[in-house]
Amino acid sequence: MSQHPYQLGSRVFHPKDTIVEIGDIKIGGGHFVKIAGPCSVESREQIFNSAKAVKEAGGQILRGGVFKPRTNPYAFQGLGIEGLKMMREAADAYQLKLVTEVMNEKQIDEVIQYADLIQIGARNMQNYDLLRAVGKQPKPVLLKRGLSATISEWLSAAEYIATQGNTNIILVERGIRTFSDETRNTFDVSAIPVIHQLSHYPIIIDPSHATGHSSYVPSMTYAGIAAGADGFIIEIHPNPKEALSDGNQSLNFEQWSTMMDDINQLLPVVQQLMEK
Amino acid sequence: MSQHPYQLGSRVFHPKDTIVEIGDIKIGGGHFVKIAGPCSVESREQIFNSAKAVKEAGGQILRGGVFKPRTNPYAFQGLGIEGLKMMREAADAYQLKLVTEVMNEKQIDEVIQYADLIQIGARNMQNYDLLRAVGKQPKPVLLKRGLSATISEWLSAAEYIATQGNTNIILVERGIRTFSDETRNTFDVSAIPVIHQLSHYPIIIDPSHATGHSSYVPSMTYAGIAAGADGFIIEIHPNPKEALSDGNQSLNFEQWSTMMDDINQLLPVVQQLMEK
Amino acid sequence: MSQHPYQLGSRVFHPKDTIVEIGDIKIGGGHFVKIAGPCSVESREQIFNSAKAVKEAGGQILRGGVFKPRTNPYAFQGLGIEGLKMMREAADAYQLKLVTEVMNEKQIDEVIQYADLIQIGARNMQNYDLLRAVGKQPKPVLLKRGLSATISEWLSAAEYIATQGNTNIILVERGIRTFSDETRNTFDVSAIPVIHQLSHYPIIIDPSHATGHSSYVPSMTYAGIAAGADGFIIEIHPNPKEALSDGNQSLNFEQWSTMMDDINQLLPVVQQLMEK
Amino acid sequence: MSQHPYQLGSRVFHPKDTIVEIGDIKIGGGHFVKIAGPCSVESREQIFNSAKAVKEAGGQILRGGVFKPRTNPYAFQGLGIEGLKMMREAADAYQLKLVTEVMNEKQIDEVIQYADLIQIGARNMQNYDLLRAVGKQPKPVLLKRGLSATISEWLSAAEYIATQGNTNIILVERGIRTFSDETRNTFDVSAIPVIHQLSHYPIIIDPSHATGHSSYVPSMTYAGIAAGADGFIIEIHPNPKEALSDGNQSLNFEQWSTMMDDINQLLPVVQQLMEK
Repeated sequence: MSQHPYQLGSRVFHPKDTIVEIGDIKIGGGHFVKIAGPCSVESREQIFNSAKAVKEAGGQILRGGVFKPRTNPYAFQGLGIEGLKMMREAADAYQLKLVTEVMNEKQIDEVIQYADLIQIGARNMQNYDLLRAVGKQPKPVLLKRGLSATISEWLSAAEYIATQGNTNIILVERGIRTFSDETRNTFDVSAIPVIHQLSHYPIIIDPSHATGHSSYVPSMTYAGIAAGADGFIIEIHPNPKEALSDGNQSLNFEQWSTMMDDINQLLPVVQQLMEK
Repeated sequence: MSQHPYQLGSRVFHPKDTIVEIGDIKIGGGHFVKIAGPCSVESREQIFNSAKAVKEAGGQILRGGVFKPRTNPYAFQGLGIEGLKMMREAADAYQLKLVTEVMNEKQIDEVIQYADLIQIGARNMQNYDLLRAVGKQPKPVLLKRGLSATISEWLSAAEYIATQGNTNIILVERGIRTFSDETRNTFDVSAIPVIHQLSHYPIIIDPSHATGHSSYVPSMTYAGIAAGADGFIIEIHPNPKEALSDGNQSLNFEQWSTMMDDINQLLPVVQQLMEK
Repeated sequence: MSQHPYQLGSRVFHPKDTIVEIGDIKIGGGHFVKIAGPCSVESREQIFNSAKAVKEAGGQILRGGVFKPRTNPYAFQGLGIEGLKMMREAADAYQLKLVTEVMNEKQIDEVIQYADLIQIGARNMQNYDLLRAVGKQPKPVLLKRGLSATISEWLSAAEYIATQGNTNIILVERGIRTFSDETRNTFDVSAIPVIHQLSHYPIIIDPSHATGHSSYVPSMTYAGIAAGADGFIIEIHPNPKEALSDGNQSLNFEQWSTMMDDINQLLPVVQQLMEK
Repeated sequence: MSQHPYQLGSRVFHPKDTIVEIGDIKIGGGHFVKIAGPCSVESREQIFNSAKAVKEAGGQILRGGVFKPRTNPYAFQGLGIEGLKMMREAADAYQLKLVTEVMNEKQIDEVIQYADLIQIGARNMQNYDLLRAVGKQPKPVLLKRGLSATISEWLSAAEYIATQGNTNIILVERGIRTFSDETRNTFDVSAIPVIHQLSHYPIIIDPSHATGHSSYVPSMTYAGIAAGADGFIIEIHPNPKEALSDGNQSLNFEQWSTMMDDINQLLPVVQQLMEK
């Protein structure tokens, strides 16, 4: 018989919450993280403006893609390593940490010179060689749930990373594919308590990809917080209508700032309830 | 060309929130309703104890099925009209309103002598003759979303009721069928802001059917509240392990009471955010 | 513990294929049935022309709706009992049997005066009172699979009919709801061997609703035949572009006739393989 | 605006069927290919016996995995390049061509020394760097449909290969993920005519993964043939109960041989219909 597909990631074997630390930022075990930034790094100005907006509203980590997995081969594919260098400068200028996606093993060595966390995208959730490779490097890993991955498959994917020695794993619920057609995907908010029951890894939410519409991002963020999420990763853009990717689902800076004001009221209440 | 499938229910034609009133209880437009009770009425003792628990924790409306739609024809099918009479007495004893499901037109006349609201179950969401029939009677209607209904189909079902003159409609998100297998259904929390954008009807949540596991009910209730739901309908039972139906997803009275304490802290904060 | 949800319908308890007989037409146990006609009866001319086309190409049973379940309450809802009378005349004029849908119990007594088989639509697959009611009348029943019904739920629905005494049940696979968007639904061709393994009832296919596009109807019909289906029910129309419902998925008479020529070559080969 | 996501693969721009040639085997444009073999290469004896069975029943290409993408990190992961060498010997001994899966770019150079075709698995359908890499090498590519990929996403993935110069692409329908639970996946047989309408690439079927049960493999293969598939890829094993992977869905040699006898009767009839 096969062994259980996730052991290192199971709460049975490791009852205590994993707390991922990046500098003085903590994620999990009651610590909530706020990640925001553009879908793609597009220009120096765009990423610096975004970093400033992230910081001013209270964000801690800057997100931004430089290697973009795009369904359409003719769509913008990202600025590559030059974009990442700009993003590092922007993050440093505003005392933010930085997360970006890697799409293959060959990018890892160079990317981790600039990034504080590495993201594995939904399309690569079962790219096992890539999972093993990020398991061998030291930076924490954001592992997005595949579009049609069960919870068990998701935790099994995390196990591929963990077996290589890296258990600084943060799971990201980003919506699943269903028949429902008013949102880009269906935000599976129940994944939050399910993961907390089965595993000790932190789970954060990506309401931008989950819904595909900026108007639904704030309410879904509040929902995720109330359900016990350990943080969020959100897309913002100086001018969503002109974004090279994912403009529909990006908040502008004013929407982002307003949402953060609301979160500052909601989060302490929820955290107090959770502590009981 | 066909006309738009929902017009009376559309926010375009009716921008202002519908507020459904049952006695002094209001639902929608900033008014939040708390509905709880057993899946099925099983005995006088069970329904009186449940009504007492609902009232003591701050619930306003007692739920309970007496005509049960069951997938398995050999499973318990409900106590029928005698069960409803008991339930009415229990509701009256504790100054609660009462909602129960009707499964066919012939039940309506008798049921509305005892019930304050009528529920249409998920399996009957597209039973158009039943929809028309409840549209012709005066009691407010809880319309559950079908297991695989799009938002547009759901609002079209509501339109069948509204075209007959009854626009006291409350939509109930109760989970949709997806591939995901850790929960009984997938709670589509995004339906809340989507409905609020497209329609003026109140939308409440049924986290019991959405998840199928009592341990996930509180966190999903908080998520729904934070997303802007206008209320909830929850299954509770004096002894969930011995329930004749849906025991797995029913809270016991202590869990119910604890959850309500938390809601009393969370709800005012969320309502304040919504008002802004 | 609950009893098994389908017993009368299970091959375990009833190993031999059910053969449904309507006059000299047999369905199941190696007998293949050909049902065709318009989605809705629209006029005397339309239904007579359709009946003629059905007969000339070798069809045996005329289909046509007179009580139409429509998602949109403002769409054409059918001609009612007057349409059924016309349809009966058309069927008689061309020596065809006749199947039509009932949407509620009250229609049954009158409909069975004219119809040879009664259809329960996908939306009513779990309308248990309707199932029980058709279980008490003598005509064979076509039971369509619900849009998101599992095989077990479908057979449980059939059990509601069978427990009332009517086991002349024909199951209809008509596509399930999935994420896939090039077809109206996803034709679950594997339901055919699954049903044949679990149950003794005949299963026929409805490739028109399964695909939603007439161009895919012939190939899906051949697929269903090759998979062992006991027949088909197909939508045809004298002028699909002007049909009051489901025009996209209706074959015109020439397409229907061509398809039947092909079926006359394919079916004997498949039947010979099945007999081995 | 973005360009259309698949152009090289579109029938609009390239109306004529692509015919992929491997030695004297042709696939597409009326040419049907028969591929079979074990899920995984397990031993010299197993792969030689399998190759013999493939050949004797009329198969043309031997399938077998040596780098296995497994959900469970603790499950058998394949014999690697040594397994591939054995498989090459077995294929040569029985005059068969050979297809195997690559999971990352680094494997390609070595694998194509032994393999005649390269397979991209469902989990890697959107691993864009891998797609580009196989687009740069000369061997034909089998591109499996992702578990929840739309037809458009699948053709867009093929476009990543084609833009690099390799248009010898064979699409493989292997079942999609739905709510339906009697089969491992849901075999989307309608993908066959949809692909034939939208694209010029051949499409073959994998009924083993689509159903997950050997008892449904023959009927689904016949269904795929009747729907116009350009071939199949099937799992067989000398002793399915002892297979290290996918035993449930593998035919034993007798089942395989019987199925091929039936196909030899069915296929010519279908091909004759298609030619008209």
